[in-house]
Amino acid sequence: MHAPAPVSCATQDADSNGVLEAQVHRYRDAQPLATPEADWLAQETPIALEYNGISHATVLATPCDIEDLALGFSITEGIVRSAADVYDIEVTPTPQGLIAQLSIASACLDQLKRRRRTLAGRTGCGLCGLESLDDVVRPLPPVAGPPYPILPSAIVRAMQALRERQPLHQQTGATHAAAWATLEGELLYVREDVGRHNALDKLIGALLRQQLNPAQGMAVISSRASFEMVQKAAAVGIPAVAAVSAPTSYAVQTAQQLGVLLIGFARNQGFTAYAHPQHLGTQDSESLP
Amino acid sequence: MHAPAPVSCATQDADSNGVLEAQVHRYRDAQPLATPEADWLAQETPIALEYNGISHATVLATPCDIEDLALGFSITEGIVRSAADVYDIEVTPTPQGLIAQLSIASACLDQLKRRRRTLAGRTGCGLCGLESLDDVVRPLPPVAGPPYPILPSAIVRAMQALRERQPLHQQTGATHAAAWATLEGELLYVREDVGRHNALDKLIGALLRQQLNPAQGMAVISSRASFEMVQKAAAVGIPAVAAVSAPTSYAVQTAQQLGVLLIGFARNQGFTAYAHPQHLGTQDSESLP
Repeated sequence: MHAPAPVSCATQDADSNGVLEAQVHRYRDAQPLATPEADWLAQETPIALEYNGISHATVLATPCDIEDLALGFSITEGIVRSAADVYDIEVTPTPQGLIAQLSIASACLDQLKRRRRTLAGRTGCGLCGLESLDDVVRPLPPVAGPPYPILPSAIVRAMQALRERQPLHQQTGATHAAAWATLEGELLYVREDVGRHNALDKLIGALLRQQLNPAQGMAVISSRASFEMVQKAAAVGIPAVAAVSAPTSYAVQTAQQLGVLLIGFARNQGFTAYAHPQHLGTQDSESLP
Repeated sequence: MHAPAPVSCATQDADSNGVLEAQVHRYRDAQPLATPEADWLAQETPIALEYNGISHATVLATPCDIEDLALGFSITEGIVRSAADVYDIEVTPTPQGLIAQLSIASACLDQLKRRRRTLAGRTGCGLCGLESLDDVVRPLPPVAGPPYPILPSAIVRAMQALRERQPLHQQTGATHAAAWATLEGELLYVREDVGRHNALDKLIGALLRQQLNPAQGMAVISSRASFEMVQKAAAVGIPAVAAVSAPTSYAVQTAQQLGVLLIGFARNQGFTAYAHPQHLGTQDSESLP
């Protein structure tokens, strides 16, 4: 997988485009090949998210498109209500990783503090019971369906395009992609990351930074579809999620509840609809791509 | 992918073996197939971990082998020092998911509380800054190398066996597996989960519950190798991790620092060594499997 480093994403570090070079030892038929070879690795870096100076969470992510990641995460995790609540994002490198410092509306910060204090209180001790069962599912309104039915050929078209728009994955084999397509299946934006949740957060952040309406297209992802992927998509009103691989039971249940058209195993001209198939249109076989 | 539900894992719920049935709509060549079909989905459930009655974390996992998961997570995340610190694990179903209640040694609980209080203090406010950059990397001693070199054919053998030992994945396409192999490549235990970290935690929990020494074999995983996978393996002294897919840069760096033989792209009779290849032995080509 050795090739020139791609210029695929916006990084803080001029020397990196989300890939790092390494010396590796290859074996074939259980025998070593002659000499160590150079190879490209997908970069994975701890990225701390701070809100108005207060540490909140750290994700392990590919260090590119960090502003997209920070904005997307803040919205899909319910920390801010809209992009307008984020006033500024500053990314600072440190020896341990990157720190993304967000300035957010004080109402959001107050809510974040209150949420955490309440939880801390509930556990009855000094611990912060941040992640109890009740916190997993956030109450989200159901998404509106797509403005018009999505033709099956649009899903197939978007998925075919996605395969050719993953430079980090082609170089490293270690990344997932989340892409934004029109309801006709035209791929507009792709974001890659070692984590599929991060890739989706980056994509959502990119959409919002460009003031695109998440209700007017679909997310296509190179990975499986888990509960969190569906919840993140629904949090910004994305009406359809199409995944190359399988969904989990909880992803399907969540998509059913929140009104999301959920598609899995989208590959080889076919796919399977797991939730809200009524949002798929019908078409003449003559108009197929 | 429709077939009888497998009996592959120990569940709390007699009706489930980690899979759930669903009605799905299949499309081929962008046309719907005749009628909805039944399919199996990998189960994904929120599982809350409580230590001596105090909520600590919630993972989204396949609800089988929960005791393995709870013990493995507690050890690989540094909450307890050894399996002996865990006195009891009780799993209770609730409408929102499962609660795994662990009774642990009070010294561990004190340490857990102290760690969190220190963090809360450092952020200078009522928030618990649980996940700042400094918390990502735990100080771990390097692992001892394997007791004798691992032959390349053992890696190939273990990986070939893994492909046939993933019943949940064969049914659902939505799960990863982590397996334990001898240094000769004989596969002894496999655990599956919708999350690769969970699969590895389940495997490590299973090893420790059976009083097997993690230093005497290798972990083979069906997924990519990220930083956290290597850190979890090193936390219990596993000397070698072989992954079907790619490692990340941070996984390679961590394996180099902690002395772990890290192998990626282990497939089709070949593999690539990314860290500590000196732990691989050499062999006559005549003795290949």
